[in-house]
Amino acid sequence: MTLFNGLSAFPITPTDTQGRVDTDTLCQLLDRLVKAEVNSIGLLGSTGGYAYLTRSERKRATTTAVEFLDGRIPLIVGVGALRTDEAQHLARDAQEAGADGLLLAPVSYTPLTEEEVYQNFVAVAGATTLPLSIYNNPGTTHFTFSIALLERLSQVENIAAVKMPLPGDDAFEANLAQLRNNTPNDFAVGYSGDWGCAAGLLAGANTWYSVVGGLFPVQTMKLTKAAQAGDVAEAQRIDSFFQPLWALFKEFGSVRVVYAAANILSLSNASPHLPILPLSAADQERVAMAIKTLEKLDETIKTATTF
Amino acid sequence: MTLFNGLSAFPITPTDTQGRVDTDTLCQLLDRLVKAEVNSIGLLGSTGGYAYLTRSERKRATTTAVEFLDGRIPLIVGVGALRTDEAQHLARDAQEAGADGLLLAPVSYTPLTEEEVYQNFVAVAGATTLPLSIYNNPGTTHFTFSIALLERLSQVENIAAVKMPLPGDDAFEANLAQLRNNTPNDFAVGYSGDWGCAAGLLAGANTWYSVVGGLFPVQTMKLTKAAQAGDVAEAQRIDSFFQPLWALFKEFGSVRVVYAAANILSLSNASPHLPILPLSAADQERVAMAIKTLEKLDETIKTATTF
Repeated sequence: MTLFNGLSAFPITPTDTQGRVDTDTLCQLLDRLVKAEVNSIGLLGSTGGYAYLTRSERKRATTTAVEFLDGRIPLIVGVGALRTDEAQHLARDAQEAGADGLLLAPVSYTPLTEEEVYQNFVAVAGATTLPLSIYNNPGTTHFTFSIALLERLSQVENIAAVKMPLPGDDAFEANLAQLRNNTPNDFAVGYSGDWGCAAGLLAGANTWYSVVGGLFPVQTMKLTKAAQAGDVAEAQRIDSFFQPLWALFKEFGSVRVVYAAANILSLSNASPHLPILPLSAADQERVAMAIKTLEKLDETIKTATTF
Repeated sequence: MTLFNGLSAFPITPTDTQGRVDTDTLCQLLDRLVKAEVNSIGLLGSTGGYAYLTRSERKRATTTAVEFLDGRIPLIVGVGALRTDEAQHLARDAQEAGADGLLLAPVSYTPLTEEEVYQNFVAVAGATTLPLSIYNNPGTTHFTFSIALLERLSQVENIAAVKMPLPGDDAFEANLAQLRNNTPNDFAVGYSGDWGCAAGLLAGANTWYSVVGGLFPVQTMKLTKAAQAGDVAEAQRIDSFFQPLWALFKEFGSVRVVYAAANILSLSNASPHLPILPLSAADQERVAMAIKTLEKLDETIKTATTF
C-alpha cells in the first residue's frame, strides 16, 4: 500500500478573517479524521485554501497537524504556488515539519506551457525526498495535463501519484487503462470530484481525494470500503445518502458547502477567504437538510449492527 | 480627457530570480515611455508580473515609478490579488506611493461567482479615492464579466473604466455600443490584445492597454494617433510593420515575447518569473527579426519627415 491509497480526506483550514490559522479548531477537525481511520489526510488542498494563505501560516498549519497526528495517519501537504521558488520553499517547509507526502498543482496566472509545467514539477519534486502527487485540477489551475505529460512526469524521481479530475461520461475504465499503460506499476492514480469517486474506486482507482471525507469521514470511509471491496450494491446504497450533498457541491462548489456544513455542525465558525462568500441563509438551510439525509446513513448502519 | 485614455503602456517589471525589482532598469524602461509621451503608464499589469511579486516589491516598484515619473505621465497601478484584503492593502499602498489610478483583476483560484466579484470590486474601489479600471482578462483570471455585472460595477464610486478583451470576430462596434448603452457617459472603455487594439480605437474605444507600447512606445504611439484620428489607411500601413510581432504574441503569449525583446534590445537581462520559461534561442531569433521589421517603420517615418 502506498501513501496515496484509499480515502485521502481534505479538511478546511479554519482561519480568522486575516488568514491566521485557528490551530485549535484545525486539531478538532483532524481528530474526527483520526477517529474514522481515514487512509491519509490532505492538508492545504484546494478545500484547505492553500492558495489564500501565506507561507508562514501554511507552515504553522502543517506543524500543528504533524504534532497532533503524531504519526497516526499519514499526512499529505499541498505545496502549490504561482512561483517555482515559492513552491520549493513550501515543499522544504513541509518536509522539515514532518509531512509524509506532497501535493502539487500547476497554479498559474499567465497560462503555462507543457514544458513549463514539466520543469516546475521537476524542480519542486527535487526539492525534497518526499513522494509527490500531481494535482491535476483544471477547474482551479486552468491547466490540463496531457497523457504524454503525465507519462513524462511519472518517470521523475519522487513523483508517485496523480490526482485526476473525473473523466467525462464516467469513462473511468478507459481513463484508468490509458494512465496505467503509460505510467509505472507503482504509480498511484486517484480522482477528485466527490460525487464520482466511488465509481472511480469501483473501476480500480487507488485513491479518492475527498472534500466530503474531510468533514464526514465516517460515512465517507463506509463508501470507500464498499467501493474498494467491489460491492456495487452497497456502494450505491451508501451513495444515495450523499446525493443531496453532491447536488449542492455541483451547484456551489464543494468549498462553499463544506464551510457552511462545518458552521452548521458547530465545528468551526470560520468563513471562506474573501472574495469567496459564505452561502446565503436559504442555501445554508439546504446544506442542513443534506446533512440530515447523510446522518440517516449512520442510523441504517447502527440498525444493521444491532440486528 | 480621463486618465484612461489613449495609449496606456504596460512595461515589464524587471526582477532578479528571487523576484526583487531591478529599479534602475525599471527607470530606464519608464524613460522610454516618458520620451515617447504615452498617455499613461500601466505599472504591474499582467506584463508587469504583478501576480508573481510580493506586496513589498510591488510597493517598491510603485514608489520607484512615482519618483522617476514625477508627474510627467499619469501612473496606473495593478492591485489584483487572490484575497480581497490583500488587494485593499495593495490599493492603499499605491495611493500612498502617489499613483494616479488603479487596475484591478478578479484574480481567482476557486472560481468566483458574479456576486463575489462585485463585492470584491466594491471593497477594493472603496479602499482609496483613486479612479479604478476593471481588468476584464478571462485569459488569466478565468472570469468573464457579463454586461450586467459591468453595468452594476460602473455605478460604483471610483470605478471609472474597463479594460476589455478583444471581442470575437472583431465586432468592436457592437461591443462598444453595448457597453456605452449600459454604463455612464464618462465611463472609459478600452481594450487589450495588442493586435486588435488599433481597430478598437478606430471603432471609438477610449483606451489601448498595451503590452507592445511598454517596450516600443514610439511606434505604438504612431499607431494610436493614426487610429484615434480615424485614419484607416495610415493605421493599416503602420500596423503592417507590427504583424510579425502580433504573430509571435499570439503564438507564445505577449509576456514571453516582450521579455525576449527587452533582452535582445539590451534594455534588460531579466527573465520571466519561473515557472514561465524564456523563449528558446530559435524563437528569440524570430523575435529579433520581428523587431527589425518594426524598426523599418521608423525609417519610413523619418523619410516622410525629410521630404
